[in-house]
Amino acid sequence: MNVSIIGLGLLGTSLGMALRGKNIRRSGWARRKEIRRAAVNTDVIDECFDTAAEAAKNADIVVLAMPIPQILEYMALLGKEMKPGAVLTDLGSIKHKMMEHSDILPQEISYIGSHPMAGTEKSGFYAAFPTLYENADVFVTPDCKATPQQIDMVFELWKTVGGHPAVIDSKHHDAIVARTSHVLHVLASALATGILDARDPETELELFRGCATGFRDTCRIASSNPQMWREIVEHNREAVLDALMEFDQVYNKFKQEIESGNFDAFERDFAHGKLLRDRWLEYKQNNQR
Amino acid sequence: MNVSIIGLGLLGTSLGMALRGKNIRRSGWARRKEIRRAAVNTDVIDECFDTAAEAAKNADIVVLAMPIPQILEYMALLGKEMKPGAVLTDLGSIKHKMMEHSDILPQEISYIGSHPMAGTEKSGFYAAFPTLYENADVFVTPDCKATPQQIDMVFELWKTVGGHPAVIDSKHHDAIVARTSHVLHVLASALATGILDARDPETELELFRGCATGFRDTCRIASSNPQMWREIVEHNREAVLDALMEFDQVYNKFKQEIESGNFDAFERDFAHGKLLRDRWLEYKQNNQR
Repeated sequence: MNVSIIGLGLLGTSLGMALRGKNIRRSGWARRKEIRRAAVNTDVIDECFDTAAEAAKNADIVVLAMPIPQILEYMALLGKEMKPGAVLTDLGSIKHKMMEHSDILPQEISYIGSHPMAGTEKSGFYAAFPTLYENADVFVTPDCKATPQQIDMVFELWKTVGGHPAVIDSKHHDAIVARTSHVLHVLASALATGILDARDPETELELFRGCATGFRDTCRIASSNPQMWREIVEHNREAVLDALMEFDQVYNKFKQEIESGNFDAFERDFAHGKLLRDRWLEYKQNNQR
Repeated sequence: MNVSIIGLGLLGTSLGMALRGKNIRRSGWARRKEIRRAAVNTDVIDECFDTAAEAAKNADIVVLAMPIPQILEYMALLGKEMKPGAVLTDLGSIKHKMMEHSDILPQEISYIGSHPMAGTEKSGFYAAFPTLYENADVFVTPDCKATPQQIDMVFELWKTVGGHPAVIDSKHHDAIVARTSHVLHVLASALATGILDARDPETELELFRGCATGFRDTCRIASSNPQMWREIVEHNREAVLDALMEFDQVYNKFKQEIESGNFDAFERDFAHGKLLRDRWLEYKQNNQR
């Protein structure tokens, strides 16, 4: 199998690293020349091309590992360069816009979107690491042209790097990740500012002192790339607003309970959140290889 | 120095462990007999007493490492057992209520509250570990009777276990930690339920799949003890409501930006949250020994 990774940031580079020694030919391309050189020198990919078109030419799977606007742009650019029967996938955090846009692909190219639930608050080539996808759930969104063999090939790619792929409808995907990821980023960012923004340096120091591991973890993803998260939320606006409304119902109930002093209800609701989070943790632990 | 730790949960036990081999006599007491026995057997403390009163009798510092209602209860019970000139401290997450309640102490006993900004989502004797307080900021709230020597003694205790103590007004403390800690717990819990609560098992599984390390960290503290957090928020209600209002201002601005499609502003605000969180991380890293 010949996989071509277009874009060598955190996700693309980590994928190249994870595919090392797996009997898969890894070619690729990055916008910056020094990254292309570093990627070959550090065995992230086997071969780098000077243009994305050349890199895509002989691949069985082309992986667009780029920000959303570039995914849409390169889908149009590369589709016509790819060999018949090849699969185009991407690692974008939304899937329905890509699915709609995939109409632009030639008839012989299938679009099978991927969204590995993996990442960190860091970005770029130098933030990558080979275990990023280990035990990650991966949402896969095949278009109607995709054959079972092609879907299998994408599943194999993800299994090879330790992921757990599952097919999902692209629109439904966007609603799910609006809740499980996009809303979290909005909230973590609002919390970081809501907690640390101070009117004077003395208060700021006290707030800095008052934040510990709880703040570190709860607001970790507030340190993510602002432009990237703007693009994700912008392209999934409706689903994010729906997910925020779901969250608001729970949040407003908590606020009301605190305001009215109904702490029996507060404790019950807190226990319910704990139950769900503990069950999720158990689910993840049971799914580790 | 003779330190008596009353209550051997996560915080008290970790304190005993951290004071190991530091030339400090550690005595203590826990409600459950098997924990008292385990604490001595595993060198958490040097000596365990059958009653809290006996444990407090010869201590230079009595540390109430208990839930808030018990801190208030044992302050009244133990003050009259302590030797003249001794200091009573506690590890509670709020300080003003304790300060008011400390009127109950005999004239010869000073109350100097402590709030180490350290903890995990777990609780109890078996969740303890000796490095819990390393590099933790510790808020210290002395009453007006406390002498510089007594404040020094409490500072020394915290420095011995790796903490960074600083004096703060008890009421101001409660406002600061409402922002840096209490509000975080309310939000993390609301997020856990807002994200994972599903109407059917199929959606639940998709939501479970869609949650990854972002959810794991952002909602980690939602797995905390519901009763403990009920007691903390209940006893710091006004400050938590104020802090929630501060948060709401930022959060509502984010929501408005998403609703109206003003993503330039969204990106700017996200970048501001990142700046604050990154600056905080730098502050913490610079303060590590």
